[in-house]
Order: sequence, then C-alpha cells, then structure tokens
Amino acid sequence: MKVSEVENGEISKRASSSSPSKGMKRGLSIMDFILRIFAATSTLGSALSMGTAKQTMPFATRFVRFKVVYHDLPTFVFFVTANSVVCGYLVLSLTLSFFHIVRTTSVKSRILLVALDTVMFGLLTSGASAAAAIVNIAHYGNSSANWFPFCQQYNYFCGRISGSLIGSFIAVVVFIILILMSGISISKH
Amino acid sequence: MKVSEVENGEISKRASSSSPSKGMKRGLSIMDFILRIFAATSTLGSALSMGTAKQTMPFATRFVRFKVVYHDLPTFVFFVTANSVVCGYLVLSLTLSFFHIVRTTSVKSRILLVALDTVMFGLLTSGASAAAAIVNIAHYGNSSANWFPFCQQYNYFCGRISGSLIGSFIAVVVFIILILMSGISISKH
Repeated sequence: MKVSEVENGEISKRASSSSPSKGMKRGLSIMDFILRIFAATSTLGSALSMGTAKQTMPFATRFVRFKVVYHDLPTFVFFVTANSVVCGYLVLSLTLSFFHIVRTTSVKSRILLVALDTVMFGLLTSGASAAAAIVNIAHYGNSSANWFPFCQQYNYFCGRISGSLIGSFIAVVVFIILILMSGISISKH
Repeated sequence: MKVSEVENGEISKRASSSSPSKGMKRGLSIMDFILRIFAATSTLGSALSMGTAKQTMPFATRFVRFKVVYHDLPTFVFFVTANSVVCGYLVLSLTLSFFHIVRTTSVKSRILLVALDTVMFGLLTSGASAAAAIVNIAHYGNSSANWFPFCQQYNYFCGRISGSLIGSFIAVVVFIILILMSGISISKH
C-alpha cells in the first residue's frame, strides 16, 4: 500500500502542495518564464541586427557597385534563420512555462521542454559559432588560405555582424541555465 | 506524517527498490554508459582525424613549399581542442555513469551530470559548427568576399577535414539523447 501511495501521482501531488518544495518550484518556473522572455529578446535582436546589416561603398565603377549584404555569406543566412526559429520557439514555449507556474506538479511537460530546449540550444549554438568563425575570418583573414579580411573595407558592416553575435551568445548562456533549472524542477516532483 | 514519508528519501528509496521503475532506471543508466563510450570514440576519432590532417604538394618553388596543416586555421585548432576536451570529459563521466547503474536512486549526481553534459554539448556543437562553416568555405569559397576555395588544390586534406566532422556531429546527437534520458531518469526518482 505504501508503495502505491508513493507512486500515485495524485497523492504525491497533494503531499507536495503543502510542502516548501512547491514554493521553490513555482519560483523556478517564474524565473524560467522571465529568462525565456529575455532570451527571446536577445535572439530577436541578433536576428534583426544581422538581417539588416548591409553597406554600400561611396564609390563605384561602371559595372560594379561595391556593396555587401548579410546574405552574401550563407553562414549568416543560417545565423539569422537559427535565431529566428529559436526566438519563435521561445515565444511559443512561454505558454508551457506559464502552465508550469500554475501547475507546479506536471513532470511530463517539463521533460518535453528539456528535450526541446536541448535541441534549440544546439541549433542556436551552432548558428552562433558558425557565424563567429566567419566573422573571425572577416576580421583577420587567413594568410595560409589566402583569404582576405574584408573588414578592412567594410567597417560598418563588420561592426554590425560582430555585434549581432552578442545577443546570440547571451541566449546560449540563458539556455544552459534553463536546462539546469528544469533538471532541478523535475527532481523536486 | 504522510508528507514526511513521501519526502523522506530513505523511504521512497525502499519503496522504489521494489517497483518496476528501478529496472527502467537501471536500463537507462546502462544505455547512458554505452552511449558515452560510443560518443567518446566518435570525438576521439574526430580529434585524431583533424589533428593529423596535412598535405604537402608534390611541387615547390625555391622559397615556398606548398603545404597545409590543420593548425593553419585557428578554427580547426578549436575543433581539435573541443573534441579532445569532450572526449576526456566523457571518459571521466563514465565513473559517474557507472555509479548510477549501481545506485539507481541518486538524484543530485544526475543533475550535476545534466549540467555538465549541457555545457559539453554546447562546446562540442560550437566546435563542430565553426569547423563546418570553415570547411564549407574551403570547398566552395565565397565570391562576394573573394575567398578562394583551397579544396581545389588540397583534395586529400579537404577529405580528411570534412570526414572528421562526422564523428563530432554523431556525438552531438548522442548528447541530445543523453540529456533527454537523464531528464527521464530524474523524473522517476
């Protein structure tokens, strides 16, 4: 009987509703909600900053206008896509996060959230790192491969693309905290 | 009294030791252990494959020998470092994973493992994506930035660096599964 009592979700829910761990879980859920809004804003900022980055040189030849746009480099397209997808996901996940504030005892939805968070964390890290690798070459070039650092011409463009990485990496750190907090929440059920 | 019984780890441990969830947790722990060995082998293979990649051209001028080594590109150095660190971590984490097979009820060590796994997952994804971005340019170049695809000369070297990405991305997928499985294990305590 004792075994079935412990395993029975209904009873353990009633039990935990009168324990201090419920308050802690609610606190974690609220923090989760706030961090998600923060990360969504960061990724949105990154996507917009990169997506609107372009620069046209004040001179031109008869056939060529010297102009650079973010989608000249496929990695930056991936960066914008990854940030947009993650931003959309974070906004959608707010509903589930809000649900966890109201119903602190749900476990399955938390596991689902950890799984989705991990995948989105991977996508975001991937986009941010790939873009960072390209930005590095844009700044310093590579003499072995004869890749010229185009930042020596396109100063403004390079500032924009470098700055857009910041929001993305902030969101990466937030995701690590979110996954850790979900682990703690699940353990307290 | 009921509350304290449910919260008391000792009692819930005794309770769960006679329940089928213990067998499931042990199964998950064993799978965790095997997946870690698999991922460690993958990352080791990636690190070795990239770390030993070099090619010397069969011709040379009086002053220049045409040669390419992985550490000509700083991103590849990061890739090798990230894979080595993650491989070392995975081997060390085997002890904790083995501990979970023996003691299925421990929760705090599982949360620690989720946190470390998440950080290492981020590091590995970062290294793999950055390297992939550079390999992409090495293969196709970029006409807008005037970056020449050096793979047209260094065929063998490019094959090696492209191949070394595979192990890394396999390990990335394994990490997602590991984090998800840890979440399920924690929820069953």
